[in-house]
Amino acid sequence: MEYGIGLVGCGTVGQGFLEILHRKGDYLRDVLDFEARVVAISDKHKGSLMVPEGIDIPAVLGVLSRGGNLAEYPKSGPDRAEALDPLDMIEGTEADIIAELTYTDIKTAEPATSYIRKALRMGKHVVTSNKGPAALHYRELRDLARKNDRQFRIEGTVMSGTPVFHLVESGLAGNEIREVKGILNGTTNFILSKMETDGMEYVDALALAQKLGYAEADPTADVEGFDALAKIVILSNVLLGGPLGTDEVSRTGISAITKADVDAARADGFRYKLIGRAKKDGGKITAGVSPQKLPLSDPLAGVMGARNALSFETDLMGQVTVQGAGAGKIETGFSILSDILAIHNCRRG
Amino acid sequence: MEYGIGLVGCGTVGQGFLEILHRKGDYLRDVLDFEARVVAISDKHKGSLMVPEGIDIPAVLGVLSRGGNLAEYPKSGPDRAEALDPLDMIEGTEADIIAELTYTDIKTAEPATSYIRKALRMGKHVVTSNKGPAALHYRELRDLARKNDRQFRIEGTVMSGTPVFHLVESGLAGNEIREVKGILNGTTNFILSKMETDGMEYVDALALAQKLGYAEADPTADVEGFDALAKIVILSNVLLGGPLGTDEVSRTGISAITKADVDAARADGFRYKLIGRAKKDGGKITAGVSPQKLPLSDPLAGVMGARNALSFETDLMGQVTVQGAGAGKIETGFSILSDILAIHNCRRG
Repeated sequence: MEYGIGLVGCGTVGQGFLEILHRKGDYLRDVLDFEARVVAISDKHKGSLMVPEGIDIPAVLGVLSRGGNLAEYPKSGPDRAEALDPLDMIEGTEADIIAELTYTDIKTAEPATSYIRKALRMGKHVVTSNKGPAALHYRELRDLARKNDRQFRIEGTVMSGTPVFHLVESGLAGNEIREVKGILNGTTNFILSKMETDGMEYVDALALAQKLGYAEADPTADVEGFDALAKIVILSNVLLGGPLGTDEVSRTGISAITKADVDAARADGFRYKLIGRAKKDGGKITAGVSPQKLPLSDPLAGVMGARNALSFETDLMGQVTVQGAGAGKIETGFSILSDILAIHNCRRG
Repeated sequence: MEYGIGLVGCGTVGQGFLEILHRKGDYLRDVLDFEARVVAISDKHKGSLMVPEGIDIPAVLGVLSRGGNLAEYPKSGPDRAEALDPLDMIEGTEADIIAELTYTDIKTAEPATSYIRKALRMGKHVVTSNKGPAALHYRELRDLARKNDRQFRIEGTVMSGTPVFHLVESGLAGNEIREVKGILNGTTNFILSKMETDGMEYVDALALAQKLGYAEADPTADVEGFDALAKIVILSNVLLGGPLGTDEVSRTGISAITKADVDAARADGFRYKLIGRAKKDGGKITAGVSPQKLPLSDPLAGVMGARNALSFETDLMGQVTVQGAGAGKIETGFSILSDILAIHNCRRG
């Protein structure tokens, strides 16, 4: 089965996705009966492309890796259009699926939400790794998708391609999820790990994380817990039945934790982790993000470095925990493929 | 959508499955559009039942909990038959799906394999938690299922209902699995955990496991690694492309491990775990089961008590680990529902 795919945004995640599509094309076709043509790309900074017969992925990745504009893409033809705004691209493309891959704005969720609404109204499936629309408008967008008999899928919003929603949808279907609890931010977990295993002070561990590219120059979103908070809101709205607003989640970051705190906890057999948690109690969800001292026997205590993990408390299966990457070009690119394959699996039945 | 289900074997797993079907019936219908009638049961020791309109689950569970024979089931009617051998039941029932739930015989995989072959040839889907057929005849049974356009599903054979095959099929689809490595036997993990956390000698920890029902009176299958070996063979054949025979897996159990070994490892920052492992190298699979000293930073090192966990090494997502229950009446019963829901998801498309 063949799908036309349009990309809105073609930064790290988009390029990771394209790289996977190219590397795995034969396998996907032969084993999963899945073929994709990337028929359109529109990126605010990198220009746009419309190629109904499907782009040459290495050529596009070549242009982008040189820092070039998509207008430099070597192919041309009568159907080719240039410099299309994402909304115009969505309007004009015959893509079946739009991958919305612009940067997260957790305060406004724009312009991503406008792109997603437009695509769903045009009868296209939407997959995204953007936390903004998923955190602020999940229910509206899911309902809009259903109304149009299309899917709105967001695997990459929580732990990049490490299966969270896929796991619950397929492997845990039939379970009620009562609580989620996890290490949902790799930067802070890297910092806390370094403070314990290498005896670093917070500021030094943060500087190392910045040097290695785990933390931004302004690390606030990570270290003060805003990123984990957005993920807890998404998990609450998708898995616990929501609705939960971002202002309903308590939040404490890790910037006040000292090496002395970490050492003292360690001496008592505990380990500091930044834990995001949401629990359903009757009809109400209580949720928060804060540093917690976990006993070493906790499945989350052994999760070290930049890795993420999430535990689900279920009625039939008790506690189930998944651990894996929480970020990365290929890993988040894979989340996009993973969501598209879920759409494919529904269609081929 | 409604399905007729026939059970071959109605011991702990079968009764766990029936209990879940009863408890979750409304939810499954309302949320997942899934309805099941259990139309036939045949158990070598507990008798048989054919009720085309669907059994009354509480009534059957009542009979079984009193240690009674299925012949005592209070309903009767013209279509009811009694004392049917499983093969005759499979022949006579209009069930769409057969759940094969008899006990594992890892040497012969019988009579389960005969039941499964019969059911697939009759055009029925088969789901099973029985390790015998999955370990010894996976490829044959999978191919037979495909030939008949039916499914042969085995989620419960490795970690009860904790998602293993569902996780790979949906959440990791598109990845190549290069290696699997896990704690696949709860009894031995319980014993090793007790030796470390409670300072028990092996024999005392084993006696406690027996007292609590984690270990059989003859604990050989668990403590000498045969159970984990069967699971490694299943994983190799399903996820690494097999074929791998049970005689191609090296095996060492935990019975020679002493408290002194455990303490010495602990002092060095390591923890003993019985690890099953299979790795694809070119076209060849190497596999083994043995006690290993893991650094505490290994995701498997933190898995304590009777819990199980499995790590997948993948080409796109790196290492992904899932942790959860590895046994239990409801947990294994859920694996059966989980496989049936996968068949349902394929049909409703």
